[in-house]
Amino acid sequence: MVAREREVNSMKKLDFSKFTQDDWEAMSVKEWREIVRRDEWTGEGVRIARGAVLTNLAVIPKEYAFEFLLFCNRNWGAFPVIDVTDAGDPHPKFLAPDADVRTDLPGYNVYINGKMAEQPPNIKKYWRDDLIAFCIGCGGTFLWSLEAAKITYRELGDFTTNIEMVPAGCFHGNLGVETRVYKNWHDVVRSIQISSRFLNFHGTPVHMGNPEIIGIMDLTKPDLWKPALWACEPLKPGEIIVFHPTGATLNEVARKTKLPLFITHGFGKMFITNKVAEEMANF
Amino acid sequence: MVAREREVNSMKKLDFSKFTQDDWEAMSVKEWREIVRRDEWTGEGVRIARGAVLTNLAVIPKEYAFEFLLFCNRNWGAFPVIDVTDAGDPHPKFLAPDADVRTDLPGYNVYINGKMAEQPPNIKKYWRDDLIAFCIGCGGTFLWSLEAAKITYRELGDFTTNIEMVPAGCFHGNLGVETRVYKNWHDVVRSIQISSRFLNFHGTPVHMGNPEIIGIMDLTKPDLWKPALWACEPLKPGEIIVFHPTGATLNEVARKTKLPLFITHGFGKMFITNKVAEEMANF
Repeated sequence: MVAREREVNSMKKLDFSKFTQDDWEAMSVKEWREIVRRDEWTGEGVRIARGAVLTNLAVIPKEYAFEFLLFCNRNWGAFPVIDVTDAGDPHPKFLAPDADVRTDLPGYNVYINGKMAEQPPNIKKYWRDDLIAFCIGCGGTFLWSLEAAKITYRELGDFTTNIEMVPAGCFHGNLGVETRVYKNWHDVVRSIQISSRFLNFHGTPVHMGNPEIIGIMDLTKPDLWKPALWACEPLKPGEIIVFHPTGATLNEVARKTKLPLFITHGFGKMFITNKVAEEMANF
Repeated sequence: MVAREREVNSMKKLDFSKFTQDDWEAMSVKEWREIVRRDEWTGEGVRIARGAVLTNLAVIPKEYAFEFLLFCNRNWGAFPVIDVTDAGDPHPKFLAPDADVRTDLPGYNVYINGKMAEQPPNIKKYWRDDLIAFCIGCGGTFLWSLEAAKITYRELGDFTTNIEMVPAGCFHGNLGVETRVYKNWHDVVRSIQISSRFLNFHGTPVHMGNPEIIGIMDLTKPDLWKPALWACEPLKPGEIIVFHPTGATLNEVARKTKLPLFITHGFGKMFITNKVAEEMANF
């Protein structure tokens, strides 16, 4: 930790290979965004800046903005929109006016006509005056509250389900879910109570128990996103799996909807805002 | 009550002067909408059909739909959008596919260029292929839950505040609030806990106590809406006043924003849906 602080202060490039989880969690949002803005960190970044509000990102042309916002409204569990930029303006005024959505995420998925075109570390070259950025609450926001309650769990990655979302205009697709595996029912009950305070951050589970009911046939093969660092081991006896909507669903929507341009946050590469989770809890 | 049922069954026009509050509350949503659709009841109707979800209504041309939906998103406490019709389609598919927003409210406020043009009992003559209806959750929905908890209160009407809403495009205005006056702090605490389950129905108070802080100088003169049946008596010693956002704010927005056409539900003339409050509680 001391080593890291010295490096930051001297403005040298950081050696992330020396970083511990504590170092990442202790990093300030401002420091994180500066590093990311310079493309010095382009990897996943979920547990950064303890307690900060994380969001997913969708960038689309203004011409589709009403239908997309309506799609989010109709599928709020997956797409709780908490900030929308003006066309051409990359600064999210509510969540972080000093941030720039073109550069301040570690990476992006760029879809052109529904096909992944590139996974660049910034989207400066794609930016246009008619683009609107939607910042969408992310379940990573309430992990700190689970941890504070001493609830332990493991994650298996993100899966597409057989649950069809309510369409709006051209937008449609199947819901994607993230997974948390708990050791006992008490922790499941507590996690539902705690995440219910974060309704704008994927706080309401859509299913628990048997994954086949929602069309997930092999828990060891997450088709939507497999986090780099997690082992996707099958359930052990007594473990209970709970499924929350995931922002990775945006990739499913981008592929199915086939807009000329649809940019999302990269897998596990969320936007970290100036807000803290507790100030955005519903109550 | 028996008299009323006989009249309904015989399809005669009802004599509403004989109706008790119990009669109104016991009325089915289907029956209510049929009466209203025939313009047989054009008065206020808040406590109808016990436990049903009530909504406010905003009807605007599609050209303004994105900015309006964004305005609602940014001011969610006042404008929780829970159903949006397709352009030209008067049937709210989620809340009540068998209903018609042109006829199924007891009355409407029609604004043309920001001026109240008419308060008709239906809007059939105004309907166009480019109109979109937004059904917006209404605080009347959680009154039954307060009652079930044996919480008593009185109401003073709706007031405009000095709280400026977050603008979006051409949409702006000051927040309007409804008032509930409680006899003791215990009831205030309980009402906040209970209404917090109804975040999409004005469930989060914006202020309590001294009304002058939010720019309300005379509690006996509600400037936004004075309910027909309520006495607007000043606070008595020991009473506590709590302010929730109100859907009547739509009138302020219509006046300030000056769209060529902006239709709202009439004052106290809400849309009654097929949903019940408990199925739409947040948890």
